[in-house]
Amino acid sequence: MTDLANSRSSLDDLTVDGERLWTTMHQLAEIGATPAGGVARVALTDADKAGRDQFVEWATELGCSIHIDRIGNLFARYEGTDPSRDPVVIGSHLDSQPTGGRYDGSYGVMVGLEIVRVLHGAGVRLAAPIEVVSWTDEEGARFPPAMLGSGVFAGEISLEAGLGSTAMDGTVLMDELVRIGYSGSEPAGSRTIGHYLEPHIEQGPILEAGGHVIGIVTGVQGIRWYDVAITGKESHAGTTPMDRRSDAMLSAARIVDGVDRIARTHGPDARATVGVLEALPGSRNTVCGSVRMTVDLRHPDPEVLAAMDAEFTAMAAALDPTPTIDNIWYSPPIVFDADIVAALRRGAHAVGHDPVDITSGAGHDACYISRVAPTGMVFIPCADGLSHNEAEAIERDHAIAGAEVTLRAVIELGA
Amino acid sequence: MTDLANSRSSLDDLTVDGERLWTTMHQLAEIGATPAGGVARVALTDADKAGRDQFVEWATELGCSIHIDRIGNLFARYEGTDPSRDPVVIGSHLDSQPTGGRYDGSYGVMVGLEIVRVLHGAGVRLAAPIEVVSWTDEEGARFPPAMLGSGVFAGEISLEAGLGSTAMDGTVLMDELVRIGYSGSEPAGSRTIGHYLEPHIEQGPILEAGGHVIGIVTGVQGIRWYDVAITGKESHAGTTPMDRRSDAMLSAARIVDGVDRIARTHGPDARATVGVLEALPGSRNTVCGSVRMTVDLRHPDPEVLAAMDAEFTAMAAALDPTPTIDNIWYSPPIVFDADIVAALRRGAHAVGHDPVDITSGAGHDACYISRVAPTGMVFIPCADGLSHNEAEAIERDHAIAGAEVTLRAVIELGA
Repeated sequence: MTDLANSRSSLDDLTVDGERLWTTMHQLAEIGATPAGGVARVALTDADKAGRDQFVEWATELGCSIHIDRIGNLFARYEGTDPSRDPVVIGSHLDSQPTGGRYDGSYGVMVGLEIVRVLHGAGVRLAAPIEVVSWTDEEGARFPPAMLGSGVFAGEISLEAGLGSTAMDGTVLMDELVRIGYSGSEPAGSRTIGHYLEPHIEQGPILEAGGHVIGIVTGVQGIRWYDVAITGKESHAGTTPMDRRSDAMLSAARIVDGVDRIARTHGPDARATVGVLEALPGSRNTVCGSVRMTVDLRHPDPEVLAAMDAEFTAMAAALDPTPTIDNIWYSPPIVFDADIVAALRRGAHAVGHDPVDITSGAGHDACYISRVAPTGMVFIPCADGLSHNEAEAIERDHAIAGAEVTLRAVIELGA
Repeated sequence: MTDLANSRSSLDDLTVDGERLWTTMHQLAEIGATPAGGVARVALTDADKAGRDQFVEWATELGCSIHIDRIGNLFARYEGTDPSRDPVVIGSHLDSQPTGGRYDGSYGVMVGLEIVRVLHGAGVRLAAPIEVVSWTDEEGARFPPAMLGSGVFAGEISLEAGLGSTAMDGTVLMDELVRIGYSGSEPAGSRTIGHYLEPHIEQGPILEAGGHVIGIVTGVQGIRWYDVAITGKESHAGTTPMDRRSDAMLSAARIVDGVDRIARTHGPDARATVGVLEALPGSRNTVCGSVRMTVDLRHPDPEVLAAMDAEFTAMAAALDPTPTIDNIWYSPPIVFDADIVAALRRGAHAVGHDPVDITSGAGHDACYISRVAPTGMVFIPCADGLSHNEAEAIERDHAIAGAEVTLRAVIELGA
């Protein structure tokens, strides 16, 4: 080790090896590769084990120590020079959807690896240790719920519930964790995190549409999920005059249109979606007697989301037939750490990008970790906003830019 | 026979025996009676045979001759005094839905029977013969399509298609017709009909709601059926901004709302119904990618129905995502015979009722028969507009009033 650790000017000269990052990402993508160009590396399968093993091999080559907790979260620690400092943690997840893309999750872990490679290659240690993390079972595709490993780490999901999660075929998570050799001894959540940075592909179309390379994620949308039931009265489509109908389909349609309008009046960050609508009896010449439907409302500002909730409820109450509304889930908005957001912004400007603030519409491990540590995320564009799809694609320059921004923030936070 | 046949004043004194009509209807309803108070007398089952046999027995007691055509339509003929006159035909159908009511169809046949009983009991013959008809398989519940027997009679359905109609279990109509002994030798449609009168329960709520006892049916709605397909783009409910969505559910909702509005702007006789709406992929947090739905538009005036069609098509074409619309069926409006309508109106006033003009929203055997003979219908109220339901109910006084009105018209037309 040299004394570069204390030389900011020398640290400022460090840069990502773009070719190495790009190559490494695609080497990883060969593990569980699908014929259609995607990845099938579902949590705790043999492919997940192979991905973890590859990561451990690469990290070990850099002198990292490997730490595994009881839910299988995997940390590669590159020591700092100051034993009193908490680590700067970089990462995401190595598991994928059953027909997933090559970058969802793995991008964040590979950026973390690349940053350690940069430091290691330059013979540099920061004051703070650097840890690269892969959280267990972010996708929840085999073992629900999603973000299971980070949820257990943050104490939001009990260890028992996490280990007991059961796949459709009856397989239990703990058994698979033991089977693939990633059942660690460290209590989940016992590690202290100084700062947590998660680079990720956007999984949405906003950056690409705006021509932005770097999105600084200021927070995560709050979400309200509703189950809506409407009971009208089945009647003959020919003999029942319009003013004597109780048409469940009509109230349902007005909810679809109404929540769309509510979202549009609350600006670009608001979302409203009716994804499920089931109408009975489903006969062409019978007025619809009942509808079951869902409503999904989102906004990053809790007050705006509350206003959307109130407007939806009032709108629905005025309908005839009147819906019954059950707000089955509320996930409060998350605001990321201001210091980390500022560090990422400065990092972006330092490497010549004009970043745009963005709110995450999807859940990430960073959501849970934000409850126990200062947290931030950086997004890069993905083609056509497509993710959870084998056709998921990103541009090489964007991948490198996201790593550069993260490197700058890590140096600022860890120096 | 007396000379009453030529005495209008004596004919004017004839009245229905209300108690006899009511009792006879409920005797018939015991054939195929269900525990819930309805009737299961599905076409060409043993119960249908038993109903036909009972009708034949009653008609034969009145000196009627029985005539059966090749599709099983059943005519009971009470001769007139003038061999040159075509018959006044009264009737409907004796078959029912699988869980049908006691009056749908059978009311019209029993009114016809009661009128012959009145004439026979008074020792009277009109100039014209009277025929009471039960058309085969009006419901189409077992052997599609509906109104099969009258459709074959009118030449709108070929005899081959009618006889070849096949039930879900593979049974063929002709085999069942032979089995129950109602495969006649008379060519279907070979009988001449001078006037056709069909008394029926309304099967809708209009008469009851308006406090009317007698509805004079001036015609039958025209119907347009559409299949609508909408293709949007599946996307993430959290990450996809409102202005970057292609939401099939939203276009579907606007069609539901739009056709409802179109019907309401075209007055009390217009109908618009979306009975089927199937949305995919049916995921709570995914913007809807595709919808299949139906639209049913109805109006008794062909020009108004054409205007509704044009407004619907234009409205849909302006939506984004834009639906594909397939107008799969058009049943033109039917206008009933003006002389019969007038005779029924006079009949209603003669027996002390203030009749209301009404359009039929449902199909009836009278629709097909109107293409080959002067045709009219009289409606009586049914409780809550309910039909095709074991709970179908009518009031005794209304049943008698409908028979009185029909009797008056029959005397006017047949004297």
